[in-house]
Amino acid sequence: MTWRFALVLEPAASDDPRLDFTETFTVIDASEPALSVGELSAQRGDGIFESIGVVDGHPQETTAHLERLVQSARICDLTAPNVPQWRQAIVAAAARCPAGESVIKLILSRGLDHGAYPTAWVTAAPAPDSTAARERGVRVVTLDRGYAIDTPARAPWLLLGAKTLSYAVNMAALREAKRRGADDAIFVSSDGFLLEGPTSSLILRSGGRFVTPEPGAGILHGTTQVSLFAELARRGFETAYETLPVTALAKADAAWLVSSLRLAAPVAEVDGAALAIDAELTASVNEYLLSPRD
Amino acid sequence: MTWRFALVLEPAASDDPRLDFTETFTVIDASEPALSVGELSAQRGDGIFESIGVVDGHPQETTAHLERLVQSARICDLTAPNVPQWRQAIVAAAARCPAGESVIKLILSRGLDHGAYPTAWVTAAPAPDSTAARERGVRVVTLDRGYAIDTPARAPWLLLGAKTLSYAVNMAALREAKRRGADDAIFVSSDGFLLEGPTSSLILRSGGRFVTPEPGAGILHGTTQVSLFAELARRGFETAYETLPVTALAKADAAWLVSSLRLAAPVAEVDGAALAIDAELTASVNEYLLSPRD
Repeated sequence: MTWRFALVLEPAASDDPRLDFTETFTVIDASEPALSVGELSAQRGDGIFESIGVVDGHPQETTAHLERLVQSARICDLTAPNVPQWRQAIVAAAARCPAGESVIKLILSRGLDHGAYPTAWVTAAPAPDSTAARERGVRVVTLDRGYAIDTPARAPWLLLGAKTLSYAVNMAALREAKRRGADDAIFVSSDGFLLEGPTSSLILRSGGRFVTPEPGAGILHGTTQVSLFAELARRGFETAYETLPVTALAKADAAWLVSSLRLAAPVAEVDGAALAIDAELTASVNEYLLSPRD
Repeated sequence: MTWRFALVLEPAASDDPRLDFTETFTVIDASEPALSVGELSAQRGDGIFESIGVVDGHPQETTAHLERLVQSARICDLTAPNVPQWRQAIVAAAARCPAGESVIKLILSRGLDHGAYPTAWVTAAPAPDSTAARERGVRVVTLDRGYAIDTPARAPWLLLGAKTLSYAVNMAALREAKRRGADDAIFVSSDGFLLEGPTSSLILRSGGRFVTPEPGAGILHGTTQVSLFAELARRGFETAYETLPVTALAKADAAWLVSSLRLAAPVAEVDGAALAIDAELTASVNEYLLSPRD
């Protein structure tokens, strides 16, 4: 099934300093030419995005994604997104998604080179099949992210903590993982602390306690991780944010990479060493993540 | 004068594993829709680029830019650019540029999401007026790039040394410089070594000796810096690549940020402290940089 479409948000041709979009948008085929070559998204990766999982037409965690979009815009000095308009576009896109799992992407670009308005669009497409990763897990390698754990706080111009369109390093890390015979990567700081996957958050379990690296350290605060921690707390587990040394990974009873589309993928192997998979908990967690969540 | 156009390179619909482009390209208005929303350049900054200065219709240092495009493609695991085709596109674009200074950008994107071919285009537009920066100089601030000097060699997946479309941090550094009342920035490594500007190379002069930071440390090897070093050597000056501590900047007799469009901009101030400008040398150097160079 190769359906794909996009909604292009129309800039409001007003003097509104927020450079807002109108309440209408144009639905287009995702393969037709829509962006000019002057787009700063295409020229410089200068913009931000969110990927929202859609299950049977229901967009998951819309509010959390929109909150992160607002935060990314703030870090990148972009016009503050008009949240109700984005929400309207998400609802419109989700209503056009068929049954099953889909993905809606929100993209807010700085706009045209020398232009006055940001550019914004929403795409919708089938989600990739994540069954194997959810059931059999993923083999990961740890990769140095190059930064010390205290760098993001000290150097906000590095945009760590914003979900920017400058995503080439994240993609390169996934290629490096595959080159090493693995499926995915976990970034570690140059001073030896666990950070996150290139497109996911890391969660470790030790007994009945679940921990994830402190998002302050330039890590994206994962919407799926937050949703899952709330569910684990409801089930009576302890959850915590911590600064975790790399050695914590091998010592964990289990670990997951969690993200909006693949959901909870158990870590089956770290740098060639096997890690136990808790198949029962993983299945129940993914059942929760596939249920409608707001 | 607001002329702008683009040449879109047509992918060769063949089984050629190099996924080449045909020898024809389409000339379009730069403002018309040309790229689909599925473009990985726009979605993930996943591609590479070069900016070539054009003076009176002559593209400067075409070979050096194409060599760097090839190197960036290699670092990013992109299809190796077919250099003669790119050269042909540059010649065609330059022939359409009016007298004065223009800029040609080469963009090679990984292509469409789930697509089989890269996407490539060349844009041409008037160069910004750099007279003030060339004559009166630029005030700079030093900004931590977050990496230690030895990181790039150890972590090639960080793509340091490739000129990628994931350029949001470079743009954020320029905004941070302006926020601090300066015009530009010089990145320094987390362990205190000089690197480069967000869009330029750094050259320091001590007496008759010119030095620039060693490009091995994840620094882009600047085409303008290389061209200028050759010219300085012809004039009998000593030139060298060195690992330079941040303190070398304040101690220098003079410093320049050099790049393809602005050319040699003398550094007038570093973090609020004045630096001497060698107006005569700067003028003669820019005269050289504005002469036809291959």
